[in-house]
Amino acid sequence: MSPFPSSAPHTDDWCHLRLTTDDGVATVTLARPEKLNALTFGAYADLRDLLAELSRERSVRALVLAGEGRGFCSGGDVDDIIGATLAMDTAQLLDFNRMTGQVVRALRETPFPVIAAVHGVAAGAGAVLALAADFRIADPSARFAFLFTKVGLSGGDMGAAYLLPRVVGLGHATRLLMLGEPVRAPEAERIGLISELTDEGQADVRAAALARRLADGPALALAQTKALLTAELDMPLAAAVEMDAATQALLMHGEDYAEFHAAFTEKRPPKWQGR
Amino acid sequence: MSPFPSSAPHTDDWCHLRLTTDDGVATVTLARPEKLNALTFGAYADLRDLLAELSRERSVRALVLAGEGRGFCSGGDVDDIIGATLAMDTAQLLDFNRMTGQVVRALRETPFPVIAAVHGVAAGAGAVLALAADFRIADPSARFAFLFTKVGLSGGDMGAAYLLPRVVGLGHATRLLMLGEPVRAPEAERIGLISELTDEGQADVRAAALARRLADGPALALAQTKALLTAELDMPLAAAVEMDAATQALLMHGEDYAEFHAAFTEKRPPKWQGR
Amino acid sequence: MSPFPSSAPHTDDWCHLRLTTDDGVATVTLARPEKLNALTFGAYADLRDLLAELSRERSVRALVLAGEGRGFCSGGDVDDIIGATLAMDTAQLLDFNRMTGQVVRALRETPFPVIAAVHGVAAGAGAVLALAADFRIADPSARFAFLFTKVGLSGGDMGAAYLLPRVVGLGHATRLLMLGEPVRAPEAERIGLISELTDEGQADVRAAALARRLADGPALALAQTKALLTAELDMPLAAAVEMDAATQALLMHGEDYAEFHAAFTEKRPPKWQGR
Repeated sequence: MSPFPSSAPHTDDWCHLRLTTDDGVATVTLARPEKLNALTFGAYADLRDLLAELSRERSVRALVLAGEGRGFCSGGDVDDIIGATLAMDTAQLLDFNRMTGQVVRALRETPFPVIAAVHGVAAGAGAVLALAADFRIADPSARFAFLFTKVGLSGGDMGAAYLLPRVVGLGHATRLLMLGEPVRAPEAERIGLISELTDEGQADVRAAALARRLADGPALALAQTKALLTAELDMPLAAAVEMDAATQALLMHGEDYAEFHAAFTEKRPPKWQGR
Repeated sequence: MSPFPSSAPHTDDWCHLRLTTDDGVATVTLARPEKLNALTFGAYADLRDLLAELSRERSVRALVLAGEGRGFCSGGDVDDIIGATLAMDTAQLLDFNRMTGQVVRALRETPFPVIAAVHGVAAGAGAVLALAADFRIADPSARFAFLFTKVGLSGGDMGAAYLLPRVVGLGHATRLLMLGEPVRAPEAERIGLISELTDEGQADVRAAALARRLADGPALALAQTKALLTAELDMPLAAAVEMDAATQALLMHGEDYAEFHAAFTEKRPPKWQGR
Repeated sequence: MSPFPSSAPHTDDWCHLRLTTDDGVATVTLARPEKLNALTFGAYADLRDLLAELSRERSVRALVLAGEGRGFCSGGDVDDIIGATLAMDTAQLLDFNRMTGQVVRALRETPFPVIAAVHGVAAGAGAVLALAADFRIADPSARFAFLFTKVGLSGGDMGAAYLLPRVVGLGHATRLLMLGEPVRAPEAERIGLISELTDEGQADVRAAALARRLADGPALALAQTKALLTAELDMPLAAAVEMDAATQALLMHGEDYAEFHAAFTEKRPPKWQGR
């Protein structure tokens, strides 16, 4: 569906995660429940390339990131990853850490909203994947832990020292990244770390409902909203205002804006085309 | 009162809003109550030019922005604005969207604090006008809705994707700008979107009292406080600290600082001159 | 203990504050209780140079900043400082205000976490010292007041207009810096201004316990966490992600990361070396 396809083939089989799609909604499930969905090198690489492929192809209008089993994601696998990195040289370590960062950048830059459906543990890299999503829908069992310092590493991993202060403020972010203590659902809600607290066991259902709503909405307008939120964190006010003006001028030539006006005039709900 | 008057004449009649002034306090009232103060092209243009004129003339030390009737402001008028923009070409659309952005920049850059007195609806552009103020004084009937995506446009409008994450954090801002759902007074207070929650029907009265207090205070010090808050969002720490140092050195040569010390020594309240 | 000692001698006597050290934990106490620990020129200068010296020497892994007597710090001394600055020329005023800013920059840039233990008043410069710390441990008697405008100066002092919006959001920050009203412990907790609210009279004890925990932890990882939090406030996302990757690659060659893996494998707690 990309307007500009290259020679790169479509990937038919993602070995390290599960992908399902349904009329514009993609659901990516971390599916290694026996290991609390601990991330492997292959899982990071699949996330990086899957997000790039979905961003290119334009068939997806909303994405849910979920975890199978007892929790969302326990982070990098202690045996597979920590053990292996101890034997790596500097160039390999840079490659690995850049790859994990690329996943976060991809999550922030997809041309569709990303919804993390969190239950149980979201730890280490798992907490950062959730943090990089646009929405965090969590049930009462959710607990976030940025536990990098507990393994002797920096709390600033995969952009966490950039993102977390912008989500919960510098004070809470410092405490969470330095100490690595779990943040349970009530505190997460209080400090603004989650978007919606659901009833027990309802995170996946509510995330799917939100994804459906977003995918059925004015998808280009939503994609631009995300792009502006991401870009304007790094812009001065004057540039942001100019970027907003150019974006709205563009969208005011789009079909969905005209459709809104027609629907309003005809007293009916708009039928969004996503363009 | 400007120290540097140009040839531009003073405007004696603002057709699209109501302006009253009282000893340094200006009150700008959106006064189209039969339309919930929906904004027209003229209202935006008047706000842009009025804020520029007041900033030049230096007669104002605090400004209240209020809405007459059942609500604060329902945003851009669906008939007058949305209908008209559908017929505009690209250059005209850019002009329009730049104008609305200029109102927000003007609100952030006035050399006096701006207080939005919010009751009832503050929707679309109305929500962003309130967001761009320094204080949001709201009563329990207030509800904010950044409903741009509901008309098929980007939630980043008039700097909202810049300002809102800096006021309520990226998580809440994403939810509010993507979904366009109303935020009622209790949630607005909880997430830091309002400065003061008043009793029912008291937003205007409390905003006027705050404006009076600010106008009677050390106005130059307050103006510089606002200027630094605005500028330092876009500055690295080292530059911000240097800007603070230069500003305080300047103000330490001012009359109000000496007056504070004299009043303190004489055990009496200071008489602020605003310079 | 610095790997790169210069010819500058170690300071054996800090006249304007009290320094104690205990196995990697430094405690700096503002000790002028009869004046609520009001800051003098000497106290600012000592803080500036002490923080530089401790940062160079590498003997400290965590620092507590506390106040003796009834409060934390009432800010700049009205007689000693405000009186004296009234007689200063422009260059002297810049020197003074740059010095206070240097203390804040030093607090944000020390290669160890800083914990402010706050009881009673933290006013003016005292509030900003606490704000610049990584953790604010406060008891119920704590009250913060950024009262610069009350003396006729800008609320943006010592980086407050940079730091406070990044800790509590722009809305609360504007209110606090413009009005200078006291923020009591419950509100401070609600808006994210404090890291931990303790029982009455327990701020010093809890701060000491946290400092001990941090000093006994993976000190280099914690120092880098702080450095990234400070630096990434001023960086775009792409640069932050790259900085994180380089930092983790570095730390993955460190002893603490290997020690974590060995301890995990041997099912014992890690013995951190801080390198």
